[in-house]
Amino acid sequence: MKRIFFDTMKAEITRVLMKRGFTEERAGQCALLFAEASLEGVYSHGLNRVPRFVEYIDKGWVNIHAEPTLVDKIGIIERYDGNLGPGNLNAQFCMGRAIELARTDGVGIVTIRNTNHWMRGGSYGWQAANAGCIGICWTNTESCMPPWGAKETKIGNNPFILAVPRKAGSIVLDMAMSQFSYGKLEVTRLNNEMLPVDGGFDIDGNLTRDPAAIEKSMRILPTGYWKGSGLAILLDMIAALLSGGLSTRGMDEAKPAPGVSGYRGSQVFIALDPAIISGEGFAEHLVNEAVEYLHQAEPAEENGKVTYPGERTVETRKQNLERGIPVDESIWQKVLAL
Amino acid sequence: MKRIFFDTMKAEITRVLMKRGFTEERAGQCALLFAEASLEGVYSHGLNRVPRFVEYIDKGWVNIHAEPTLVDKIGIIERYDGNLGPGNLNAQFCMGRAIELARTDGVGIVTIRNTNHWMRGGSYGWQAANAGCIGICWTNTESCMPPWGAKETKIGNNPFILAVPRKAGSIVLDMAMSQFSYGKLEVTRLNNEMLPVDGGFDIDGNLTRDPAAIEKSMRILPTGYWKGSGLAILLDMIAALLSGGLSTRGMDEAKPAPGVSGYRGSQVFIALDPAIISGEGFAEHLVNEAVEYLHQAEPAEENGKVTYPGERTVETRKQNLERGIPVDESIWQKVLAL
Repeated sequence: MKRIFFDTMKAEITRVLMKRGFTEERAGQCALLFAEASLEGVYSHGLNRVPRFVEYIDKGWVNIHAEPTLVDKIGIIERYDGNLGPGNLNAQFCMGRAIELARTDGVGIVTIRNTNHWMRGGSYGWQAANAGCIGICWTNTESCMPPWGAKETKIGNNPFILAVPRKAGSIVLDMAMSQFSYGKLEVTRLNNEMLPVDGGFDIDGNLTRDPAAIEKSMRILPTGYWKGSGLAILLDMIAALLSGGLSTRGMDEAKPAPGVSGYRGSQVFIALDPAIISGEGFAEHLVNEAVEYLHQAEPAEENGKVTYPGERTVETRKQNLERGIPVDESIWQKVLAL
Repeated sequence: MKRIFFDTMKAEITRVLMKRGFTEERAGQCALLFAEASLEGVYSHGLNRVPRFVEYIDKGWVNIHAEPTLVDKIGIIERYDGNLGPGNLNAQFCMGRAIELARTDGVGIVTIRNTNHWMRGGSYGWQAANAGCIGICWTNTESCMPPWGAKETKIGNNPFILAVPRKAGSIVLDMAMSQFSYGKLEVTRLNNEMLPVDGGFDIDGNLTRDPAAIEKSMRILPTGYWKGSGLAILLDMIAALLSGGLSTRGMDEAKPAPGVSGYRGSQVFIALDPAIISGEGFAEHLVNEAVEYLHQAEPAEENGKVTYPGERTVETRKQNLERGIPVDESIWQKVLAL
């Protein structure tokens, strides 16, 4: 397994983006978000995604110089137009504004429409948590999954992120509404493995752990069956309603080419400052106690460990910082050649 | 199957509550919430729950006269102490306040601590939607489910509700973080049936659809496996942090007797007014289009129908209003005798 050090990866992505015309500052910021995704183990939306991001720029779907512009402000709610700028920079800006609003009012709500794929959703949960804030954010997507009871892809996998700050390690959940991503199906198939639990339906409508059968039927499973399907439907509607932007349906209709992902999506970012709302002492104490309680749970497997969302992220980050980030050699060569 | 008309059920529950000392007004309001839960098909938290609610009153766990008192107000955030009042009245009050705040500021956030079981969570989603607001609310609970990777019950099933208003029928999702409730396991076992999908682990740690095996192991499955487990952990922490109340751990420690449910819980209620934020015309159009898109999806089964969350609720309500609400004869007799 080839490993690339974080600084090298970040510098390389910065170089690629500057070559595409990004200013040095924005290239560095955008590259940081990509490299940190890989650093923290979300390889699919880190380095691995860079070639596709560059393709979107080259095709004119991502406008590298565009920044969010304020549409209107209603109290603690600010609504932006993303102007099809880089989705990760747009999203980072929005969570940043939500945090600033939360500093004075306890809460800030920021929405954005006409943005692009935000890459790793967890980035903005960590951003809030690192600023001492509770973070809640989600995005809609073009359709990629059948709603419960359907054969046909009509709902997005609409990632939903919840984050709670904690000095000894924040709690950050980054969940898509499909049980597995298509990326996970592919990796599992290439390894000749089965999914750990049912991941979709085969062509005959039976639940299956076989990734190839699901890729064939395109009937990927919403997490929790009808529950994840319902959650995806509601998150989409609320994101579009609050941002004044497109819903999954609108994104499907606006797509500039088949397979384009995240184009003209709608997003919501909420930050809440527990130091202002409940007091910092209370917050730190409460979260530590809750984490301790969870860690006391008897593991299901011998030598198993019960972890909170985000706990392994910190371990991965530490390991990848020390040893370098594992990369797929062909993808690394592809980025070097960009 | 015995059926009782809505008005009769409501009057009967009102009588029971007044006999316990409720004022006529509060008895009527509380009875309405119970009877509407049954009317709309959530029998477990409607009539069926009344005997247990009365037991909690008799034991002093629910203080029938207590009303929420304002703890503090930070901008659009109001925080209340529930004073161990009836959980459904407390919750209805909170969503009502959130809606009032949203009318002027676009959004209102209300939290409550030291409350009691809110019964049917969907009630407060419908309350928001019926007022033309987006509703987001959740509650924590005492522990009733093992976190992912554990044998031992340490997390709540923390129902999460999302609602979007629509003139032709609102979209309301009311989901607990367990794939099935213990009530559903019991009903399925008594019918000698299997669950439609895996609902937990058996005593040997294998996923199973056999309700009896899950009741024995107490290893009920979080919805979406690790995803629902993570969501339950975060929802609990955020509810306790924002309300300044107890987390699942605190509720376990505060429980006055084994099996008591919802005692001293923490809840969050958010209302957003899309008419103020995006304009009513935009909102109605967008939601109708999204619903239409969903309905176009090809069903997986012949003669199947793809529905949005809350769609069947309206049908059930209509049918039960006309024909009467199906009741278990022994439970009805029990309520008549209270």
